[in-house]
Amino acid sequence: MDKLIALVSKLPGLGPRSARRIVLHMLRKRDTVLVPLIKQLQYVAEHAKTCSLCRNVDVHDPCSICTDTTRLTNVLCVVEDIGDLWALERSRLFKGRYHVLGGTLSALEGRRPEHLGIDHLMMRVRDEPIEEVILALNATADGHTTAHYIAEHMQTMPHIRITRLAQGIPVGGELDYLDEGTLGTAFQSRLPL
Amino acid sequence: MDKLIALVSKLPGLGPRSARRIVLHMLRKRDTVLVPLIKQLQYVAEHAKTCSLCRNVDVHDPCSICTDTTRLTNVLCVVEDIGDLWALERSRLFKGRYHVLGGTLSALEGRRPEHLGIDHLMMRVRDEPIEEVILALNATADGHTTAHYIAEHMQTMPHIRITRLAQGIPVGGELDYLDEGTLGTAFQSRLPL
Repeated sequence: MDKLIALVSKLPGLGPRSARRIVLHMLRKRDTVLVPLIKQLQYVAEHAKTCSLCRNVDVHDPCSICTDTTRLTNVLCVVEDIGDLWALERSRLFKGRYHVLGGTLSALEGRRPEHLGIDHLMMRVRDEPIEEVILALNATADGHTTAHYIAEHMQTMPHIRITRLAQGIPVGGELDYLDEGTLGTAFQSRLPL
Repeated sequence: MDKLIALVSKLPGLGPRSARRIVLHMLRKRDTVLVPLIKQLQYVAEHAKTCSLCRNVDVHDPCSICTDTTRLTNVLCVVEDIGDLWALERSRLFKGRYHVLGGTLSALEGRRPEHLGIDHLMMRVRDEPIEEVILALNATADGHTTAHYIAEHMQTMPHIRITRLAQGIPVGGELDYLDEGTLGTAFQSRLPL
């Protein structure tokens, strides 16, 4: 029991107290909570694979996004992480395909282009009928570095349009509560009304 | 994957966002996080039993507390819930045995004495060499009702000392931040210095 609590408490966002609450809840509802959860975890552990095309994780390889024939094949959205892909899918705005880097370049943490499979990305862009690459990387220093690195390497393919996500005030954001960086970017990138 | 996120997000204290973070983490660390977690969950699901003596949950029946011969047999601590038992065990102050009610009496939620196995508790107090019963119930209205109900039923056994936990200012508590109920109780129960 203690070992289970220790394992649960190491999951992101949880600590010993929340882990105990969760384990207690699972013990109380063994048949309705614990057993279905074990089954689903096992299913995922056995069947989840990394898509050999876009590096998304799914039960199929190629993943259900890569094999979806209703999606556009001429727009490729490059994201850092599967979590970012999920976030974009929830917004239901993007109808093209993805490429998951699995991180950013980082001199500090020693992540170089070969770790992100940027060669593989270049190959896809060259071989598939791609017209636009959207660099949907996080608005962090490492995200910017990675975006610039990719954009530079794609200059050999001038027919490809390279775009990045707009930066500015988030929807519902109040100026008074925004950091200066966001406010500065939003000011500089102002658009005619 | 979505089904797993849905199951995880229904655990206490978690929501869709934290569930996604956890599932993502488990996918990234399949061998070091997901697989050990599944194994431990399975072990608990298969082996956890309710102790027939005290209604604690353990992999043995009777539980390791009831069979621990170094523990006092003459003091019995009555708690609402397994979580309360764990909390007392963490404090390492109590060296007797426990009795888990599994809830409180509640007219509103229709929990009557037979649901809490109070007969079973009475039997233990009668048959075991118990000298003191500590009613370590929560300081809530239902907890008080339950404590009074049990104390009343034990009046047929006048040789048993019945006690309850002290109420007052928590350690480190500042008067300014305490609710009036706690402050009032602490004031009324003041002790000579």
